[in-house]
Amino acid sequence: MNDSIRLSIAELEERSKRIFTAAGLSADDADIMTRVLLTTELRGISTHGFVRSSRYVECLLSGGIKPVCELEPVYESPSWGAFDGGGGLGIPLMYKAVGKAVSKAASTGVGIVNVRNSHHFGAAGYYSGMCAERGFLSLSCSNGDVLVAATGSRERTIGNNPFSYAAPAGKYGMVLYDIAMSMVSDMKITQKMEAGEPLPDGWIIDRNGRPSTRPEDYADGGVLLPFGGYKGYGMAMMVEIFSAVLSGAAVTTGVHAWNETLGMSGNVGHFIMALDVSRLMPAGDFAASVERMIDGIKSSEKAEGAQEILYPGELEKRRSEAAVAEGYVNVTLYCAEQLKKAETLLGL
Amino acid sequence: MNDSIRLSIAELEERSKRIFTAAGLSADDADIMTRVLLTTELRGISTHGFVRSSRYVECLLSGGIKPVCELEPVYESPSWGAFDGGGGLGIPLMYKAVGKAVSKAASTGVGIVNVRNSHHFGAAGYYSGMCAERGFLSLSCSNGDVLVAATGSRERTIGNNPFSYAAPAGKYGMVLYDIAMSMVSDMKITQKMEAGEPLPDGWIIDRNGRPSTRPEDYADGGVLLPFGGYKGYGMAMMVEIFSAVLSGAAVTTGVHAWNETLGMSGNVGHFIMALDVSRLMPAGDFAASVERMIDGIKSSEKAEGAQEILYPGELEKRRSEAAVAEGYVNVTLYCAEQLKKAETLLGL
Repeated sequence: MNDSIRLSIAELEERSKRIFTAAGLSADDADIMTRVLLTTELRGISTHGFVRSSRYVECLLSGGIKPVCELEPVYESPSWGAFDGGGGLGIPLMYKAVGKAVSKAASTGVGIVNVRNSHHFGAAGYYSGMCAERGFLSLSCSNGDVLVAATGSRERTIGNNPFSYAAPAGKYGMVLYDIAMSMVSDMKITQKMEAGEPLPDGWIIDRNGRPSTRPEDYADGGVLLPFGGYKGYGMAMMVEIFSAVLSGAAVTTGVHAWNETLGMSGNVGHFIMALDVSRLMPAGDFAASVERMIDGIKSSEKAEGAQEILYPGELEKRRSEAAVAEGYVNVTLYCAEQLKKAETLLGL
Repeated sequence: MNDSIRLSIAELEERSKRIFTAAGLSADDADIMTRVLLTTELRGISTHGFVRSSRYVECLLSGGIKPVCELEPVYESPSWGAFDGGGGLGIPLMYKAVGKAVSKAASTGVGIVNVRNSHHFGAAGYYSGMCAERGFLSLSCSNGDVLVAATGSRERTIGNNPFSYAAPAGKYGMVLYDIAMSMVSDMKITQKMEAGEPLPDGWIIDRNGRPSTRPEDYADGGVLLPFGGYKGYGMAMMVEIFSAVLSGAAVTTGVHAWNETLGMSGNVGHFIMALDVSRLMPAGDFAASVERMIDGIKSSEKAEGAQEILYPGELEKRRSEAAVAEGYVNVTLYCAEQLKKAETLLGL
């Protein structure tokens, strides 16, 4: 499943715009989809890039996700806003929500935006990264399909919710943290199974809720565990509360992010907060302080076997810069197939 | 180390007020110290209650922590404020910061407060809990002494930073999540050593940075690992950024939270955010939605061996209610000794 194929970035960009325009999006929204998915792909986050393109198209064609992506105000004040996404596509909706958060932060120092009635918004890091590029400190999160066992449960009880923060970091560009709530994605379990290796403690429970290190147990009704045990379970609940409860979106099992039943809306909720750090100190001082923190951590003694000590987002930045320099990006074969499938669905 | 002793709550309260007044705090600030430490003790969080009383007193007597705990404004706007704590005691400073955050949230919907030049603020959950009692959704965090290894490092490179959120939860009272960044506290490692049991994967590395399951390796230069691997490391960095970098406090190894060198100030930073959920929906609807989410999780199928499925803060709520009903609380013998020591230091 790790076989990859080399695609031209320019070609990928063009195909993406064609796909999403053909699926009914406005030219602007197709541009946003392309920018977000391409950036994600360049960063090497293959689970959240174009591998989803065919699914987005299926959901759009079925009517479960609406092609019109405009934010309808539910509440607005100088530092906070809540919007209804009208059942539209998560990526353009969240992109626009970030624009509103950034503009509130620019005018009052603080910008918080909640979105309800949306769908899967791709990689959370894109949105906090948008804020960090503007020099702002930010948090972003969304709820999503319920895939993770709450501590003590043997069922899928809480969303594998994306959570991200980003901060300007001087010479390092930005700290860009972007995680989901499970210890690992199910893709890593499949990899272990193919390699015939046992799983480390804490990745999954089997169908009876017993801790298991056998990858086969996952396929046989097992469930992903949250990262760090009950601490990750609590983080998953935090994201549900900030992004879904607060937004008035569907919560945990009420969510239908990926339209498993085609045509049925998902009602996902999002949250974004941007803080204009220059209110508290010169922006350069903030970034320099983050930079010094990273300097200190990176120059500490390495653990035996560790090649280097990374800051959140460092690996993704490096991958992205390399891809941009070459003009080509490696995508998985499966991703290339999904792009092709999207085009076929649309008769392109 | 688990032997405990039963103390009358009323007596504990009186002793605490006497101790902190004698240590130079105003009557109001001694009341705040007492309220926060007592609540923490009642919740059974023995690591952050009166066990610290003698250390607070030593730091106050040495001048490393100042007995005057007033917030000096550095920046203020309707939804955000930053304050300098003047090297005072973290608990009264953060308590007052919460008051400011709550009042900003009541007036604008959003209240964020940063504090610098403070010290250890006890249990983070107290402060987010204060907001939830007012019906607000909240986040609180602080940096602290550097005790945790960044992923790939074999040194103590990042703070074991407290992080908490709280939300009103209808019949459940509130969700109250309160964690530190290590997988477990070092106390649990000592317990495993005394029991002659190996540690689970992911708790510690040895002095060379190799994963270890031997409790002895911790005593011999080992380091605590963050919860959930690199995901916990990134959370620790988030807390450093929001509470310390943003506040203009000392960062990572610059922090001296507990005055290891007596008389030397710590310059810890804190962060609190309160959101008035009633701006977006009737407060009762918000709490009912959290309640329904918990209902769903608690009524899911239990994992084999699990007694029940808890929400964050449930166990602590139960302990607190039982103690209040009895009028007595169980504290560790070590905690009782520290209280006595504080009194002796002050000639009480």
